[in-house]
Amino acid sequence: MSVRTSSVFEAMQDDLDLVRQRVAEAAHVDFPVVSRLVEDIVQAGGKKLRPLLLLLAGKAFDYDRPRLVTAAAGVELLHTASLVHDDSIDRAAIRRGQPTLNSQLSSGSVILIGDFLFAQSAILAAATDSTRAVAIFASTLGHICDGQLREMLTAHNVQQERQDYFDRIFGKTASLFAGAAEMGAVLGGASEDEIQQFRGFGKDLGMAFQIVDDVLDLREHTSDLGKPAGNDLRQGIVTLPIMIYVSGLEPRTRRLESLERVVAGEETGAEAIDEVVSSIRGSGALHEAGQVAESYLEHARGRLAIVQDRQVREWLEELLDVTIDRRA
Amino acid sequence: MSVRTSSVFEAMQDDLDLVRQRVAEAAHVDFPVVSRLVEDIVQAGGKKLRPLLLLLAGKAFDYDRPRLVTAAAGVELLHTASLVHDDSIDRAAIRRGQPTLNSQLSSGSVILIGDFLFAQSAILAAATDSTRAVAIFASTLGHICDGQLREMLTAHNVQQERQDYFDRIFGKTASLFAGAAEMGAVLGGASEDEIQQFRGFGKDLGMAFQIVDDVLDLREHTSDLGKPAGNDLRQGIVTLPIMIYVSGLEPRTRRLESLERVVAGEETGAEAIDEVVSSIRGSGALHEAGQVAESYLEHARGRLAIVQDRQVREWLEELLDVTIDRRA
Repeated sequence: MSVRTSSVFEAMQDDLDLVRQRVAEAAHVDFPVVSRLVEDIVQAGGKKLRPLLLLLAGKAFDYDRPRLVTAAAGVELLHTASLVHDDSIDRAAIRRGQPTLNSQLSSGSVILIGDFLFAQSAILAAATDSTRAVAIFASTLGHICDGQLREMLTAHNVQQERQDYFDRIFGKTASLFAGAAEMGAVLGGASEDEIQQFRGFGKDLGMAFQIVDDVLDLREHTSDLGKPAGNDLRQGIVTLPIMIYVSGLEPRTRRLESLERVVAGEETGAEAIDEVVSSIRGSGALHEAGQVAESYLEHARGRLAIVQDRQVREWLEELLDVTIDRRA
Repeated sequence: MSVRTSSVFEAMQDDLDLVRQRVAEAAHVDFPVVSRLVEDIVQAGGKKLRPLLLLLAGKAFDYDRPRLVTAAAGVELLHTASLVHDDSIDRAAIRRGQPTLNSQLSSGSVILIGDFLFAQSAILAAATDSTRAVAIFASTLGHICDGQLREMLTAHNVQQERQDYFDRIFGKTASLFAGAAEMGAVLGGASEDEIQQFRGFGKDLGMAFQIVDDVLDLREHTSDLGKPAGNDLRQGIVTLPIMIYVSGLEPRTRRLESLERVVAGEETGAEAIDEVVSSIRGSGALHEAGQVAESYLEHARGRLAIVQDRQVREWLEELLDVTIDRRA
């Protein structure tokens, strides 16, 4: 894996700046203390893959910049709102190497700030003046909550079906990539078939993105992640690499029992967790999970045949490369 | 004040039952444990004033039942979602005499269930297929969050302007009544002027509703309220009757100091709180606050002149009576 500067980010920089500006305006709060914290959260946001995907999906058809920028800002803010609640639920203190709101405000304020950001994202979606874009937005929010509820309710149990994992990550992550691509195509005036191909592209990209995230959580070191390594394990969340690792263990072995105790939350010592993480790293499970991510990306690549504009197709391919060649 | 059975509830019962059914369907969750708890919350819902207001606003014009029922279910679910988060923020254990989700689930689950209900309410709003209804819905959610944030950020301080209180209760309560009435009129095909009159009617009704609520919180006993009396005081929330009481106290008196300690959260003993509550009851502040509520209702009544249908006008007047003649 290599570090690269992707030209799509340069090419789209002006429009991404417009998105950032819309997000900042929408997230403005009257109260100075809260306002500063919310601005930090909003500005910290990583690569802006979701709004970029939405803009590119629009660019594949009719590029109606004002509406696409509005929708892209809505998608980014929805993502931010869901991170705020997610951090509040995990009681996470660090995200993207920055202190979370959670570490600086009461839990009540954090819930309300998340709700406020949800509201602002809904206002942006409504401002596209497209009932279909709004319907996609609303059902995406539903999928995200469903995925997060599933993750919470299936936690602490090592024995799970892979399908449960795929359903969960579709909800919590891929649904927003799918919705972003779909909204972009809808606002670009694509045909129904094209819209569905873009939705599928976004879904595949999002599935790969989350699998890579789950691999990084186990592969990278705390200093690179900007959050503790093995964070999923600590929270009892069983991800694909852990499932692959489990499938290679015999019943009632010490390794399986150690993992079960960590996932159940019975063993919380750093040393025990590090040992499980090392054992997963040595098992080949991370590589195998990476291959599943690659197969999603290949599937996504295949869908790009419908994109007529060669430049836009190359940019969308770059998004696929960025997803797999990712460090924490 | 007297207990009465309002004929509007009987007349609209079939349509309100349709609303309840839509709400129950939308709030369905796949997980049995959570599903049962969510159903309890959804079914416990009081008089359904907000959906009723929306339906009646539609009935004043063209009664497009399916879309109005959909929007009314969206409004009711938005209200329920905001109660779920509110209880989570207050860490309230009881609401409407029932245990809250908060007392039965982890705080993380409660945040997610609230988010899930927000998502479902947004899906219902989008299903009206009216961009204006969706825009009203989204901005209402924004006002609710703004009001709740204001309430939290101004808490624990006795010295506040009345305007702060009115801004807060507009956001947290009246905005949803205003939005419900506006949506009903919009979906009924009313003219812009009629829509604004209905929005104003809903706002006035909602302001009165919240002031009455704040009076009841101090006037009624714990057994009637279904939650502890003086709950606002305990949380440091300074409501209109408390402001009126403060304005009648001399600086540096024992009464003012007792109140300040309770509001600041420095004094949390039940006896001290009961003493402050008794003192407020004896001061005439509850009566004076009630008069402010009545003036909002009179204002609302004046707006009904535009309603041509006498039956619908009488039903809307009944809503005003129900708001003031309310026990806990």
